Amino acid sequence: MTQLEKAKKGVATREMKEVAKYEGLPVAYILKNIKEGKIVIPSNLSRRPERVFGIGKGLKTKINTNLGTSPESNILALELSKTKLAIAKGTHTIMDLSIGGDLDKIRRKILEKCCIPLGTVPIYQTVVETMRSKRDLSKMSVKDIFSTIEKQAKDGVDFMTIHAGVTKTSLERLKSGKRLTSIVSRGGSFLSQWILKNKKENPLYEYFDDLLQIARKYDITLSLGDGLRPGSLADATDRPQIQELIILGELAVRAREKNVQVMIEGPGHLPLNQVEANVLLEKSLCQEAPFYVLGPIVTDVAPGYDHLTAAIGGAVAGAAGADFLCYVTPSEHLRLPTLDDVVEGVIASRIAAHVADISKGVKGALEWDNRMGKMRGERKWKEQIELAVNPDRARKLRMKSNPKVSDVCTMCGKYCSLKGVEKWLS
Amino acid sequence: MTQLEKAKKGVATREMKEVAKYEGLPVAYILKNIKEGKIVIPSNLSRRPERVFGIGKGLKTKINTNLGTSPESNILALELSKTKLAIAKGTHTIMDLSIGGDLDKIRRKILEKCCIPLGTVPIYQTVVETMRSKRDLSKMSVKDIFSTIEKQAKDGVDFMTIHAGVTKTSLERLKSGKRLTSIVSRGGSFLSQWILKNKKENPLYEYFDDLLQIARKYDITLSLGDGLRPGSLADATDRPQIQELIILGELAVRAREKNVQVMIEGPGHLPLNQVEANVLLEKSLCQEAPFYVLGPIVTDVAPGYDHLTAAIGGAVAGAAGADFLCYVTPSEHLRLPTLDDVVEGVIASRIAAHVADISKGVKGALEWDNRMGKMRGERKWKEQIELAVNPDRARKLRMKSNPKVSDVCTMCGKYCSLKGVEKWLS
Repeated sequence: MTQLEKAKKGVATREMKEVAKYEGLPVAYILKNIKEGKIVIPSNLSRRPERVFGIGKGLKTKINTNLGTSPESNILALELSKTKLAIAKGTHTIMDLSIGGDLDKIRRKILEKCCIPLGTVPIYQTVVETMRSKRDLSKMSVKDIFSTIEKQAKDGVDFMTIHAGVTKTSLERLKSGKRLTSIVSRGGSFLSQWILKNKKENPLYEYFDDLLQIARKYDITLSLGDGLRPGSLADATDRPQIQELIILGELAVRAREKNVQVMIEGPGHLPLNQVEANVLLEKSLCQEAPFYVLGPIVTDVAPGYDHLTAAIGGAVAGAAGADFLCYVTPSEHLRLPTLDDVVEGVIASRIAAHVADISKGVKGALEWDNRMGKMRGERKWKEQIELAVNPDRARKLRMKSNPKVSDVCTMCGKYCSLKGVEKWLS
Repeated sequence: MTQLEKAKKGVATREMKEVAKYEGLPVAYILKNIKEGKIVIPSNLSRRPERVFGIGKGLKTKINTNLGTSPESNILALELSKTKLAIAKGTHTIMDLSIGGDLDKIRRKILEKCCIPLGTVPIYQTVVETMRSKRDLSKMSVKDIFSTIEKQAKDGVDFMTIHAGVTKTSLERLKSGKRLTSIVSRGGSFLSQWILKNKKENPLYEYFDDLLQIARKYDITLSLGDGLRPGSLADATDRPQIQELIILGELAVRAREKNVQVMIEGPGHLPLNQVEANVLLEKSLCQEAPFYVLGPIVTDVAPGYDHLTAAIGGAVAGAAGADFLCYVTPSEHLRLPTLDDVVEGVIASRIAAHVADISKGVKGALEWDNRMGKMRGERKWKEQIELAVNPDRARKLRMKSNPKVSDVCTMCGKYCSLKGVEKWLS
C-alpha cells in the first residue's frame, strides 16, 4: 500500500513517524495532511531510501539537486561525486537527469550511493534510446514510454517528473501566443515534438490511468511537470503555462483517487511581483498539492549567478507557500554544472528554503538564527563557524584574514562595535 | 544653492537634467520630487562628481559599495583598486569607511579616482584620531566632531552618514530591552559609548542645526544613519530601532526646511516577512525620504554568503519601495572584503536592484530581460554573453565548457529543448 492509502486508512507508517520526528510535529498532523494530499513522502516501496522526507504543508521547505550526464559530458564518476557532495551539503533529494552514456547503469549506480529520495524524468531515457536506435523522436511508442517508467520504478526511483499536462489543448495556446522562449523544459519539448509531429495526444495524458497503476504499485510520487513553464520573464504566467496548470490540477485529483502521491512543478522564470500569485494559483488549482518550483529565477540577465536569482525567487516562493525548491547552479543557462557549481547551488537553495521557513513560521526555523545571533553578539567565533550553513566556507574566509585580536574580525579590528559598547550596556 | 533649494525655486540644475536623462524621465518629475524630498542627488558643490545619480521615488534602485582600510589591513593601493573595480562593475556610489592609516590621504586619493558620488562616515575619523592621540573615545569633543565633518565636506565628499538618532531616548530603550547583538553599527557604537560614558546627549543631535549649516554650504546629502539597526533577526523591528527611526524622521523634516537633502538608512538583519513593513514604516515616519538599506540580510546563518542573503532582502525591499541598496560582500561578518568580494558584492546588489526595478515597474527595467529572453530563445550566445550582468563571468563559464554543436550548451547538447521544438512551432 502507498503512503496515501495507509493515511486514508488511518495507519501511521514508519516513514510518517520519521517525518514527524524530523519536523518536530505530531504524527497525526503528517497523517492527516498526507490523506488530504497536502504532504507527500517520496519513498519507493521496492527500495525505501535510508532517509525519507515529507514535502508539503507546514513542513520545512525542502530542496532538490539536479545532476546527471549529457551527450557533451558523460563521466559517471563525476556524477557520483556530485551525488555524494550534494548529500553532504544538505540536499533533501536528488534527481538524475542523465541523457548521456549508459543510462540504466548510471541510474543504478546513483541509486546505490543515494541514501535520500531519488527522482528521474523517465521520458529522457525513452527519447535518448529512441534516437540512439536511429529512429526519429516521433517514432517513440507508447509502449516505449511505459516500459521505461516501469523499469525505473523497479529500480527504486522514488519520484518521477511526468509531463502529462503538455496536451494538444495547452500546445494550441502556446502556438497562438508569442513567446520569446518557446519551450525550455527538456521533457516538455520532447513530448511537444511528439504531439505536434504525430498529431496525437500526449500518451502520458491519454494513458494517465496506466501510469497511475505503475505509480501505485511502487508508491512512486508523481511530480507533474510543467513542460510549458516560462523560460523568460516575458513568457511568465501566460495562457499556455496556466492552461497546463489547470490540467495538472485535474490530474492531481485523479492521482489521489487512485492512492498515488502527487506534487506539482512550477516555474521557472517569473518577475518577483508574480511569484506569490503563482504559488496561490497552484494551491488553488491543484487542491493544495505540494508545490515544487524551479527557482523561480526573477531576472533573465544574470547567467553565471542564477543560483542567486533563484535564491531570491525561491525564498519568496517558499515564504508564500511553495514546499520544495529545485536548486539552480551558477552554470544554469551556460553549461552542465561542475562539482563547485553543485555546492553553490545546494547552499544557495538551502539558504532560500531557510529564509522562507523563518518567514512562514515553520517550527524551529528561527532558533538556528537565534543561536547564531547569540554567538555573534558574544563574539564567539568557533561557534559562529560551526553554526554556519556551510562551515567550510566560513572557516576558509576567516582563516585567510586572521585578526591581531582574536575576538574580533579584520573588518573593524579594535574598533569592533559590539566589543566597544559591551561594558556600557552590561 | 543646494539642489533642494533650486528645486524649491523651480530651477532645473545640470544635475537634475542628467538624472532625468539617465532615468528616461521628465526633468519636471525629478524637480518636483527633489522639492518634496522624495529624491536626492548627492553632489558636493565644491567637487561635483563626473557622474551623478538620483536616488528616490520612481527612479532605478541604486547601489553603494563600501570599502576602506581597517587597523588590520591598511593598503591604500588595494582600496584604490576596489574603487576602480566597483565602478567598472557598475556601482552607483562608493563609501570610504577607512579606519586605518592616513585617513585624510586615503580619502583624498579615493576622491581623485572616484567619478561617482562618494560618501563617508565622519565620526570614524574623529574617533580614530581621538584614540590615536591616546585619549579615551569619550574625550572626543564636539569641536572635534564638527571640524572633521567640515574638513571632509571641503574635500568634496558628496554624502555623509550621520548617526544623529542615537540619542539618550533611543539608548534608554536599548538598555531596557534584551538584544542578542547590542549595537552592530560602528558609528552607532562609537556615539553610544560617548553618550553613555559622558551622560550627555549625542552632539550630532544636540547641534543638528550646526550640522545643517555645513551640509547646506556644500550641498552634502545627509544619510541619517541607523546606529541602532538590528544585528540579528531576533533584534529586528524592536523598540530601539523604531524609536531611532521616529527621531530620524523628525530630523529629516528639519533638514529639508534648511534646504539640506536627506535620506534615511535602514536595516540590517530582518526576517523576510518584516522587510516590507520596514519599508512602509520608513516611508511613513520620514515623509517618503529616500530609503537606503544595508541588505537587509534575511538570515543570520550564512556567513560566507551574505551577498546572497542581502540580495534576497534587497530585492524584496527594493520592490517594496527602498531606493538605495548598500552592497554586502561574501566576507561580511568574517573579515575585510577582498577585491573578489567587491565584485561579488556589486554584482549581487545590482541583481537585487534590477529584480526590484522589474517588480515595481521602473521605466525600462524589463526591456533588458526581454532582450536577453529573445537572444536566449534564438540561441544567440554572443549576444547572451554581452547582455549578461557580468559578461566576464558568463563568458568564462561558457568558454570552459564548449559544446560540440555551437548553438546549444553542454547541459542538453543535441537534446536542446528550444532547438528541438523550433521547426514545429514556426
